[in-house]
Amino acid sequence: MTRTDLNELRKDPLLGRWIAVLNRSLQPAEYGQDDCGKGIQEEDCILCEGREKETLPEIMRISDPAGPKRWLTRVVPNFAPVFKVEGDLGRRGEGMYDKMNSIGANEIIIESPMHNLPPEDMGLDQMVRVIRTYRERMADLEKDARLRYTLIYKNHGRLSGAQYGHPVSLLASTPVIPKRVKEELDGAKQYFAYKERCIFCDIIREELRVGTRVILETRYFAAFCPYASKFPFETWLLPKRHNCSFQEIQHDEMEDLALILATILKKMKALFPAISYNYFIHSAPNRVPRKDHWHTLGEDFHWHIEIMPRFVRTSGFEWGSGFYILPTSPEDAAKYLREV
Amino acid sequence: MTRTDLNELRKDPLLGRWIAVLNRSLQPAEYGQDDCGKGIQEEDCILCEGREKETLPEIMRISDPAGPKRWLTRVVPNFAPVFKVEGDLGRRGEGMYDKMNSIGANEIIIESPMHNLPPEDMGLDQMVRVIRTYRERMADLEKDARLRYTLIYKNHGRLSGAQYGHPVSLLASTPVIPKRVKEELDGAKQYFAYKERCIFCDIIREELRVGTRVILETRYFAAFCPYASKFPFETWLLPKRHNCSFQEIQHDEMEDLALILATILKKMKALFPAISYNYFIHSAPNRVPRKDHWHTLGEDFHWHIEIMPRFVRTSGFEWGSGFYILPTSPEDAAKYLREV
Repeated sequence: MTRTDLNELRKDPLLGRWIAVLNRSLQPAEYGQDDCGKGIQEEDCILCEGREKETLPEIMRISDPAGPKRWLTRVVPNFAPVFKVEGDLGRRGEGMYDKMNSIGANEIIIESPMHNLPPEDMGLDQMVRVIRTYRERMADLEKDARLRYTLIYKNHGRLSGAQYGHPVSLLASTPVIPKRVKEELDGAKQYFAYKERCIFCDIIREELRVGTRVILETRYFAAFCPYASKFPFETWLLPKRHNCSFQEIQHDEMEDLALILATILKKMKALFPAISYNYFIHSAPNRVPRKDHWHTLGEDFHWHIEIMPRFVRTSGFEWGSGFYILPTSPEDAAKYLREV
Repeated sequence: MTRTDLNELRKDPLLGRWIAVLNRSLQPAEYGQDDCGKGIQEEDCILCEGREKETLPEIMRISDPAGPKRWLTRVVPNFAPVFKVEGDLGRRGEGMYDKMNSIGANEIIIESPMHNLPPEDMGLDQMVRVIRTYRERMADLEKDARLRYTLIYKNHGRLSGAQYGHPVSLLASTPVIPKRVKEELDGAKQYFAYKERCIFCDIIREELRVGTRVILETRYFAAFCPYASKFPFETWLLPKRHNCSFQEIQHDEMEDLALILATILKKMKALFPAISYNYFIHSAPNRVPRKDHWHTLGEDFHWHIEIMPRFVRTSGFEWGSGFYILPTSPEDAAKYLREV
């Protein structure tokens, strides 16, 4: 692979945010009208069971004990990866600006052999397997010293940016810590410096004490609508045991996470039958390349899952200000989700 | 007005972002399917000429010399303001969290008496009046010591979050500096501390030197696609004369800005007939409440307009990472916009 095959990462000199520029530019005529995310239909879906040879070579699978060739979850490379595994970072300047090669990984986590299986209906055993697949991929990619962060995320429903009809989660590993994650790390670090306590542990204690924003509490997890949610019905899942790293989740905790995640998604579907949402895991950045930074991160960061329902169309106000308006209060949203 | 009539501003303890919670919560059934922003039709539009008595009392107008009762631009309060003018800030804590009353202003800047007049077709004289209206409203609101920032923004097209069929811009004054603006101020300040030069002045020089991302240069302004754009065909308009404050724009510069803004919008429409976009002005925060901070802001910040076409549906990747993927490079986008 030559350098020109690689997409480029560029740094915004004002905000410090990295963006990726694709090396083959779309022409204006290729920008269609928004299709409201219909997704790929079952007959055209190569993520389904029986079409394994049509994807790129499999990265991992959880096999189905029922048959030697059958699988329960599968991970394959993305068909059009923005971040590519081969190559060096090639950090360099361009005039006053900074760029590097778009090294990383883009993977598709196929959550089930079946095409039409909404995540809330896959059953707890399967949800545990999906979570185990998340953990194994993150742990594996952490070994690559070029990569700083692995984001696992899910797009569900026509307003979520979903591209596949098949139930999938997606994974992106990047050679930089993404801006949104860096902001959380910095915020948590500042709080820790002042209070000498983890802000997430404090939030869990506060939420469980007040109770009005809590949807559900299980043995190991708490689910609540955050005090200053960005979107209505936004829900966070936090492990009650302090740990910065999702990869260190234990077996009991995975079972419990599957239960609380499936329950929240079922509740959202019951309240909003056509719901679109995104969820993602925020965990500490990879340790290997940043041994020194790690030492404090362990104390001041706390992994979690954010679920963001997508009802609201963002406008120039949100993009220009970073200010969000919440038409339903977190207290009311939690009440609806508790009671449904 | 009692305190309970006011919406509430809440601070995200992790990210420092403020959000507004409406005091009357929407119920789940009130979240409709996304209507793709059809907007209000002409027969129902009370922003049109002749229906002046149906809006809330007018805040300002530019009169039409053609007739004593006629107007060319008009500003009225928003029908459902999130930020309200009356009341005190009432900063206070709630458990571990922070909140205040949603004091501020929400105004509708009616850009024309006519309902069906796309901004790129209003003509230069009218565009100058719109810009003058922006300036007058910002200068007026700056006098209110409770307000820290005034954002003027525009939503155009069905994917932009637009609510009105009538050509309007919108204004929101807030008692806090919005997160997105604060990030720019902080970034510009850091650069200034290191380089002792305004980052925006450096960007203008660099863009005009390289030329590949420039769309248009006029006497007072430069329009280009930024090196690390967030969205494809994103365009920034920067005054070549260093000034942190949009309100200090001179008459000649207003004429020139009208020309460059109208030309860019015309070019975007020519390339994408059904385009949706947002644009907004980023200017320095209000001076009155922050006299000390102001002194450096004058040197290290530089007002500008950002135009963001809305083709791309954001997914869990963007929301989870703050990382953006650009399917068309800024160099190619600028070329298409230059040549159309």
